[in-house]
Formats: sequence, C-alpha cells, structure tokens
Amino acid sequence: MTHTADEIAKHLGGRVVGDSCAPISGVASPESAHSEDLIYMDSPRFEDRVTKSAARCVLSVPGTRLAAKTIIEVADPKLAFAKAAELLVPRPTPAPGVHPTAIVPPSATLGENVIVGPYVVIEDAVEVGRGTAIEAFGFVGRGSRIGKDCWLHPRVTLYAGAKLGDRVEVHSGVVIGSDGFGFVYGEGRYWKFPQVGTIEVGDDVEIGCNTTIDRGSLETTRIGPGVKIDNLVQIAHNVQIDEHTVVAAQTGVSGSSQVGKQVMVGGQVGIADHCIIEDGAILGAQAGIPTGKTIRRGQTVWGTPARPLDKFKQQYALFARLPEIVERLRNVEQRLNQPT
Amino acid sequence: MTHTADEIAKHLGGRVVGDSCAPISGVASPESAHSEDLIYMDSPRFEDRVTKSAARCVLSVPGTRLAAKTIIEVADPKLAFAKAAELLVPRPTPAPGVHPTAIVPPSATLGENVIVGPYVVIEDAVEVGRGTAIEAFGFVGRGSRIGKDCWLHPRVTLYAGAKLGDRVEVHSGVVIGSDGFGFVYGEGRYWKFPQVGTIEVGDDVEIGCNTTIDRGSLETTRIGPGVKIDNLVQIAHNVQIDEHTVVAAQTGVSGSSQVGKQVMVGGQVGIADHCIIEDGAILGAQAGIPTGKTIRRGQTVWGTPARPLDKFKQQYALFARLPEIVERLRNVEQRLNQPT
Amino acid sequence: MTHTADEIAKHLGGRVVGDSCAPISGVASPESAHSEDLIYMDSPRFEDRVTKSAARCVLSVPGTRLAAKTIIEVADPKLAFAKAAELLVPRPTPAPGVHPTAIVPPSATLGENVIVGPYVVIEDAVEVGRGTAIEAFGFVGRGSRIGKDCWLHPRVTLYAGAKLGDRVEVHSGVVIGSDGFGFVYGEGRYWKFPQVGTIEVGDDVEIGCNTTIDRGSLETTRIGPGVKIDNLVQIAHNVQIDEHTVVAAQTGVSGSSQVGKQVMVGGQVGIADHCIIEDGAILGAQAGIPTGKTIRRGQTVWGTPARPLDKFKQQYALFARLPEIVERLRNVEQRLNQPT
Repeated sequence: MTHTADEIAKHLGGRVVGDSCAPISGVASPESAHSEDLIYMDSPRFEDRVTKSAARCVLSVPGTRLAAKTIIEVADPKLAFAKAAELLVPRPTPAPGVHPTAIVPPSATLGENVIVGPYVVIEDAVEVGRGTAIEAFGFVGRGSRIGKDCWLHPRVTLYAGAKLGDRVEVHSGVVIGSDGFGFVYGEGRYWKFPQVGTIEVGDDVEIGCNTTIDRGSLETTRIGPGVKIDNLVQIAHNVQIDEHTVVAAQTGVSGSSQVGKQVMVGGQVGIADHCIIEDGAILGAQAGIPTGKTIRRGQTVWGTPARPLDKFKQQYALFARLPEIVERLRNVEQRLNQPT
Repeated sequence: MTHTADEIAKHLGGRVVGDSCAPISGVASPESAHSEDLIYMDSPRFEDRVTKSAARCVLSVPGTRLAAKTIIEVADPKLAFAKAAELLVPRPTPAPGVHPTAIVPPSATLGENVIVGPYVVIEDAVEVGRGTAIEAFGFVGRGSRIGKDCWLHPRVTLYAGAKLGDRVEVHSGVVIGSDGFGFVYGEGRYWKFPQVGTIEVGDDVEIGCNTTIDRGSLETTRIGPGVKIDNLVQIAHNVQIDEHTVVAAQTGVSGSSQVGKQVMVGGQVGIADHCIIEDGAILGAQAGIPTGKTIRRGQTVWGTPARPLDKFKQQYALFARLPEIVERLRNVEQRLNQPT
Repeated sequence: MTHTADEIAKHLGGRVVGDSCAPISGVASPESAHSEDLIYMDSPRFEDRVTKSAARCVLSVPGTRLAAKTIIEVADPKLAFAKAAELLVPRPTPAPGVHPTAIVPPSATLGENVIVGPYVVIEDAVEVGRGTAIEAFGFVGRGSRIGKDCWLHPRVTLYAGAKLGDRVEVHSGVVIGSDGFGFVYGEGRYWKFPQVGTIEVGDDVEIGCNTTIDRGSLETTRIGPGVKIDNLVQIAHNVQIDEHTVVAAQTGVSGSSQVGKQVMVGGQVGIADHCIIEDGAILGAQAGIPTGKTIRRGQTVWGTPARPLDKFKQQYALFARLPEIVERLRNVEQRLNQPT
C-alpha cells in the first residue's frame, strides 16, 4: 500500500520538508531504491550516496536539506526507518484457514484468522491464538500453547507442552522444548536425568533459523519478552533470559545460567552452566564465561575466560609484546653477568 | 502409573523409612513437586528446600531423617532419581501403526509395534526394528537400518544406508549420514572427493537437536554404544567416538579424528582432523585441539591450542599479571641504568 | 555402470600400465575395496596398504609398479580419483516427475526432467531449471529461482525470492534466504530493521547440513560460484563470499563482511561484521576476526583476535614460557637487591 510523505511523518512523529504528498511504497538502501522507496541518512558522510539515490523521500535529522529530496525530519533516522518499514513492508498474509493437508485434531483450539499451512502436524490439546500463522511442515506437540499473531515460518518444531507468547516470530528449523542434556553416570553407563520441565517464550521474541531451546529438566526454561535470538544458537535446560536481551548467532548458553535484561551477547559466545550475566552486560564475540561465574551489571567482557574489556586489551597488547619483553629481560641478565 | 514407595525402593535396591505404601506417580524438583512426586536430596545443604516441598517421598542417603517425609534410602540419590524417572515417566507411546499419510514402500521391513508418524517418508529396502517410533516428517533413506525400540523425534533425516543400533534416541532436526566435507583442488576449481562410506550408530546413543553426523568418505563414521551427543554438534566423516563418551553442544569433531571411551567433551570444543583423544580425557569448553594432536588418557585440557589444565591455569594467571611483570622489568632496567 | 581401465584412463588423461581391459565399477579405500573398485596412491608410504588391497586398478604417479596391479598413471592421483568418482559413482537419479503428494501451484515453472519428491511444497511463481531434484519436504518460497541440475536433499528451505545457480547441491536442513539479524533499539524495545534484500547463490556451490544463509537486509547476500560450505555454518545478511572459497563447519560470518576468492576458512571461525578477508587468505580453526578488520591477501592467521600465524606461534611459545620468564625476572631482582 502506498502512503504519502505526510502520512509517514505523522506515523513517526516527524515533519515533512518538501513535497508532503510524495508517494512512499517501500524501503530500500540509497543504491537500490526506486523513486517511491523511503531511505534514511543517519550521518552526513552518507550525503553523497543519498543525494545520488533515485528515492524521493529521505528520513534524516532536523535541518537536513538535500537537492531535489523531500526530507522527513526525525530525531533518530535509523529507528524511524525501522518503524516505517513495519508499516510499509507488511508481512505476507496468505488467506486465513487450515490447508487441507494439515493434520489438526478435534482437541486443538484455533483462534480466529489462524493460518495453518500445508503438511502442518498439530497434536492433541494444542491452543493457537488468533492471527497466528503456522507455515508448512510446522510440528506442534501435544498440549502446546501458542499466543496471538505469532509467525512460525516453515519447519518449526515445538515439543509437547511448549508455551509461546504473543507476536513471537520463529524461523525455519527452530526446535523449542527439546530434552535438555543431563545424564548421571552409574553402573558403567549414563542414565538420563529426567527432562520433564517446561519452556516458556515471552511476547515479541524472535528466534533465528535452526536454533535449539531445551525445556527445563525439572523446572522451566524462560525466554523473556522482547528477546532476540539469532541463528544456530543453543539454549540449554533451565536457562533464563530476561527481556530485551539480544543473542547473536552460534552462541551457547548452558544449563541453569541466567542472563539479565538488555544484555548483548556476541556471536559464538559460550556461557557455561550456572552463570549469572547481570543486566546490561556486553559479552564480546567468542567470549567464554566459565561455570558459575557472574558478569556484573553493565560490564563489557571479552576473551576466554572472559575478563573486562580494558584488562583484556591491556593484557593482549603485552602478549603481543612478549618477544620484546623477553629480549629486554635477556639484556638485563647479560648486563648483570658482565664483570663490572 | 502409580507405584508405592516400597515398589520404587525395590526397583532401586533401596530401603523405605516411613510410609512404604506412599503413592508415587512422578518426579519433580522440591519446589514444583506435588505430594505424589518423588524428589531427591544429594546434599544436606538442600535439607530446607526438601523439607518445605509438598512431595511425600525423598530419595536420600541412608540415615537421612526429615519431618513428615518418607525416605527411600539409596547410595546415590541422583542416580536413583534418574533410574526411578525411567519407570515413573515412560515415554509417550502412541498406538503402534503406520499413519495413513506415511509413505512406506513394499520393500521396507517394519518390525512389530513400530510407530510411523504422519508424513514420514521411508525409501526402499529400509529395515525398522520392533518397537521403534519414527515421528512426523521422519526421512529414512534407502537401505537404512534402524534397530529396536529407537525413538526418532519429529523431523529426523537419515541419508541412504545409515545404520542405527537399538534404543537410539534421535532428536528433532538431526541429520545422519550426510556427505562429508572433502574436496580436491585442481584445474581452477574444487572436485568433490567421493563421500561413499557408511555411518554406524551404536546402541543406547542419544543425539541432540539439529546435530549433523556425516557418513565416512570411503570408510565408516562410528558412534559407539552409550554415547551422548548434545544439540548442534558436528561430527565429520570417518570420525570414531567410543562408548559412553559425552559431547556437549556446538562441539565439532573434524575428519578422521578418534575419540576414546568415557571422554567428556565440553561445549563449543573444536577437535581438528586426525586427532586422537584417549579414554577418559576431559576437554574443557571452547578448547581447540590442533590437527593430528593426541590428548593422553585421563588428561584434562583447556584453551586453544589445548594444554593441560594446571599449565593453562598457571600460564593464564601470569598472563593476567603481565602489566605487573612489565613494570617490574622496567624497574630493573632503571636501576641498572642509574649511576652507581 | 562398469568401465575399463582404459576408458577411465582416457577420461582422466592418464595411461594404463597393465590390463587395459580391467573392469572398474566403483571407488573405495584400499582396505574396503573389491576387485573392481578403483583406488589411489598419492605417496609411496601407502605402498603396503595398496599392494594388499583386493582392488585391481590403482591411480598413481607415472613410474609406479606394484605386483599384480594395473596402474593408471596420472599426475595427481587424488585429484584423478575425485574426477573418476564423478563418473563411477553417479548421484542416485529417481525417475523424473512430480510426486503426487508434492504441492506445485500452476504459477510454478518446472524445467524438463525435474524431480519433485514427496511432500515438497512449492509456492507461487517459482522457477526450477531442468534436471534439478528437490527431495522430500523441500520448501521453495514464492518467487524463488533454482537453476539447472541442482540437487536439494530432503528438507531444504528456501525463503521467498531466493536465487540458486546451476548445479548447486544443498544438504538436509539448510535454510537459505532467512531474515538477517538486525534490530534498532528505541522507546524501550527493539524494532526490527527491515530484512527485505535478496540472496544469490552461484553455480557449483555446495552447502552442508543445517547451515543457515540470511538474505540481505536492503542489499544482497552473495555466495560466489564454486564456493563450498560445510555443516552448521552461519552466513549473515549482506555477506559476500567470492568464488572457490571453502568454509569449514560451524563457522560464522557476520553482517556485511566480504570474503574473497579461494579463501580457506577453518572450522568454528568467527568473522565479525564489516570485515574484509582478501583473496587466498587462510583463517585457522576457531580464529576470531574483530569487527572491521582486513586480512591481507594470502595471509595465514590464527587466534582471537587473529594475527599472522608466525607471530601467533612465537607469542604462544613465549606464553607457555611465562613461568620461566617470571622466574628469571625474580632472579634478576634478587641479584640487584644483594649487597654488592
């Protein structure tokens, strides 16, 4: 659907400088934009790219003036761009309904306008909230509960009893509620520790492709509201991740660890078991947090075992100077050995 | 099904102190337990949690006495809990049979009481042992052989010719028997080295979600009996993992490496190609074992490249003291430079 | 199909010494070979293994003579073996056609001899080139284009609009074209940055199991011709990987990074965002490339943060000697403190 610059500005709480009737029907980068695509500029160093763009309308900070462009003035152009995109690029909505090949037992409860795609398998006593889409090959284990307006892309697996909040987006290949990895050794073999807990995913969570989230062993694995998880992440049993935390790709969080609010976890980070990552901490890519460790509120750490970033940098700089340090030590030794 | 405390004690080789008729119908943590749930206490420091629990029956070491609790005395409460859970929390067993949407060719041989779920695809000349369940969307490539009482959760893929032993549990998204990653460069491009070997998974193996295990290139990839593999693990071509070894999440084992018996491999460990990890070794999380390296029997290693844990700790402690060490060196240099 | 030694030699540009009519019908390792299997010897130290093999025909360098063996002389035996395997071990080709359970809308265009397996779901306006096989449970999102002679193993997911070249082989569980991981924080929550770009995979690419490749956010994610990607790899939005580069298992490439031609990326490598890896570079296993870093043409690096291999080795050797270095420093200090 096409909007005018004025409508977009109103939606964003911004102000149009230029043609308030300019039509806007999509979002793009400056280079790939057509005239009706909205673009944004969050730094004057992109002025050249933006000026050359075919786009007519540009989100930028107040005071920006560009030849032949309509400016929509906003305080945070990138944020405004993301918000505008929600309006301009709605998610594809196939007609509601249950595909004839989907298997839905009478014991399942589907809300209004639910979309159940081809070859979806829903087990007994499942509840699906209104407006939720379960795309092709979705598997929803018995007793699972999915909230409203969720979007399960093709090939999502929910083990029995999984609970998802509202507006949760789950990408292809994700597994939620699988058995945790717990065994007790005895009598020459491993016995499986019971993995009979639950998994609860809060509202507005997004989970990337092929990520795996285990149910609790005896308790609950909890993903808080607004948490964003990238592809190929592993979340173990009994883990708790609080709201608005971001976890980048290929990170692993081991059993019973707790990650606070608005934490930023880089890619390929390993958090061992029973760690506490306090609110607002930042874990650099590939950092390793050893068993039972606490990372303090707001702290930025890097390395394995992880230490505060400034210490890591200092130590690492000296590490790189080790050849020089050893040479200096050798000089000192030689001078001491010289006959005076 | 409900058992009495006495029946559970007999099953575990333990002894009831208290109400031997107390009914037990599940397992739980102290906090989440109902009165009929069995709980365990493996340390006196949990006495408070256990005493406050609604559970009537507690597994604990001989001599334990707790107000209003029936104690089942056992040598190893956590182990006994795991064994009791096998009895008390049986795996869900849908009625045996082949779902009408499953595709099973006449050339496939299914044992008694096999469960084949909806939208399962079985190719030619497959054998499935009695009591095995293949849940929804399972894909079993031609000529594969699956033993008795296996449990393939939804969405497991077996490439052609894969062999699984008895009582193997495979979680959602696992791929077994895929092509190894081997190429030969020549004439300006890569040519695929043939990946025509086999894959054999032993009895009582458990494989976590979205894990991938490649077939041998010309030989066989072998996972020994009782091996437990977590989620998102990568096992390359020609790898051998011996019995009762445990591999935590996101670990990768490269081509032709051999991992012995009862090895413990932490999360995100990287074992390069042609390594030998001897029996009982312990590889700490995120450790990196370089190509061709041997880790000796029973050794604990950490770091990349991995070294013995005590050396790693010593070196790492000094690494953290590098700023102080350089300061001391500077002092020494200054003193030598002072006119005497 | 069975060929003669002479036919194989002609195909490889080699020369037969021995029985030019010897039948060859497969490839194998020396130990597993039957008499009609072709084997290769790329070093004299394998002479014993090869001589004991049941195989009649051996690829080896000119001048090789082995008792009772027919030698096919070639310059590069391993390369010749890989090329011979392409001829001798053709990929299984089920009869072309669309399985009756596959869902193919009228708006899809399928080329000649296309194979569409059971329970495949193809969305609107998809194009599939001639000779391409889409095995069971394939999902091809609307508007996707797949070239000729591709092989999508069971359970491949293409999000809407994905583009694959010719002869692309995609293994089980792969997701191509999923949303990138980009969010803008504001007003107390994350807003999704639009992920509306495209994904293009070149000719002759192979992609391993459960690997995930995100579409561009506003631009294009590009995988060049001949690139080989292993299992469980993550490729983020806007990444570019140029031709004939090899990426080993569990590696992650973050947003907007560029990887040149014929780069070798080891397993579990982490490339942060906006990096440039120039042509021919080699990144050792578990290496970490920090944000924005450039790795120069042909350079070999290791470690986190990655540095040139020779520097890493030197620094690492000194790191292991830190206890000795500190002891020497202590000695120097003591001597300076002694009364002269």
